[in-house]
Amino acid sequence: MNKDELIDKITEQVMLKLNEKSGLQNLPNRENNQEKQNILPIPLAELAKYIDHTLLKPDSTEEQFDQLCKEALMYKFKSVCVNSSWVSYVSKKLRGSGILVCSVVGFPLGGMDSRSKAFETQNAIESGAKEIDMVINIGALKSGNLKLVEEDIRAVRRAARANTILKVIFETNLLTEKEKILACEISKKAGADFVKTSTGFSGGGATVEDIILMRRIVGPTMGVKASGGIKDYNTAVAMIKAGANRLGCGASVSIMTGATVLGDY
Amino acid sequence: MNKDELIDKITEQVMLKLNEKSGLQNLPNRENNQEKQNILPIPLAELAKYIDHTLLKPDSTEEQFDQLCKEALMYKFKSVCVNSSWVSYVSKKLRGSGILVCSVVGFPLGGMDSRSKAFETQNAIESGAKEIDMVINIGALKSGNLKLVEEDIRAVRRAARANTILKVIFETNLLTEKEKILACEISKKAGADFVKTSTGFSGGGATVEDIILMRRIVGPTMGVKASGGIKDYNTAVAMIKAGANRLGCGASVSIMTGATVLGDY
Repeated sequence: MNKDELIDKITEQVMLKLNEKSGLQNLPNRENNQEKQNILPIPLAELAKYIDHTLLKPDSTEEQFDQLCKEALMYKFKSVCVNSSWVSYVSKKLRGSGILVCSVVGFPLGGMDSRSKAFETQNAIESGAKEIDMVINIGALKSGNLKLVEEDIRAVRRAARANTILKVIFETNLLTEKEKILACEISKKAGADFVKTSTGFSGGGATVEDIILMRRIVGPTMGVKASGGIKDYNTAVAMIKAGANRLGCGASVSIMTGATVLGDY
Repeated sequence: MNKDELIDKITEQVMLKLNEKSGLQNLPNRENNQEKQNILPIPLAELAKYIDHTLLKPDSTEEQFDQLCKEALMYKFKSVCVNSSWVSYVSKKLRGSGILVCSVVGFPLGGMDSRSKAFETQNAIESGAKEIDMVINIGALKSGNLKLVEEDIRAVRRAARANTILKVIFETNLLTEKEKILACEISKKAGADFVKTSTGFSGGGATVEDIILMRRIVGPTMGVKASGGIKDYNTAVAMIKAGANRLGCGASVSIMTGATVLGDY
């Protein structure tokens, strides 16, 4: 265990102890939410554990990443999900909190060559990422070059550590049903941990139908992440009920507070 | 000079000799175009030399890249511009034609870390790219972290060869005038060859105003590439008259033939 991991581990333990004491006191409108939780199908504190709190817009500023981390700490989201140049920045902010850092790779087009996807993965992990959300080579899939699609995922899997969670983004709105099924099978075979619907940059997002399909194909042991266009509590719950066990959301705070939101991510 | 370069050089010379004989006979509707050229401000054969014939959509197939190369050969465009996973494929198709291969890097968000941008650059060049179109770290620029913006470009410049043309994409529709000026100054300082307006994936494209501004700031010795939303001959000419000396177009064939086109890239 190196110095950074040691610091992480100790701080995590301390934060855990502090959180046990404080309970949900950081949640805004606590009474309101507490009341809601009695009738909600999934309690908010539980829902937060599903959420990768996401900020991927190219013009996002330091200030917005500060806010992202602050919100992740406040609501205890599973992770923050960012572009690779921001991994180091948010990792420092979240050190020891238990909130993971997720880096996208080859994002959002998936058209980057495999070696570069592997390099970006390795670099993101060295900078603090514990999870990697890569985009498949969509054009290769559509060209029937399934070997390239598989090798592309394998290259990233090899570059990641054994305990790194690897999610594979399909961009479902660009795929036929047959292609979605193939992408599920290939991702599983290549050693990915999750299949994921969308980047949020292609004009489409997660649908209940796609989540049901993906869960059916990958089975119960693999993860399914719904992402793109999840902007309120009911949609989030619908995705989980359809089979998702992770959600990618830019509108995470709105989901937790019941506010409405416009725009993707 | 290695084997590949030797083959390129010889084939280029042979093609040049053949082209001298054939003239513009590959251009469709030749007589029509010939007639047009007498009244056009920029002859079509000259305009073609300005155009990076571009295919960057994530779901583009082998068949579409075959078509892209065929069109580039037919119209004698300056280059084809593709995502890095397709560089090797199109390089083989265009070997010895004199038509360059341009790879985008860190595309289209620019949020990829600098080391990965440098790696992708190096890898693209090894696969046959002679030109690199990188996206700046827009978020860093907006956060006032100009050092990172400059170092990011320098990292790619170092990874590229001395004779590799490096273009720096700003995504002008996301920037203020002040930020556009800063991006021009930094790109020039960091050793880029071109400044370029847009990715085509951010809802905005080249404007005459931006080209005039960018040309004014970088001066006459640096390149200015207009890209995004250039879909007809008149727009192409307007960009050149405003100061652009390179155009990025998916609709290149429509520009050459006068057809109308919908959609970006």
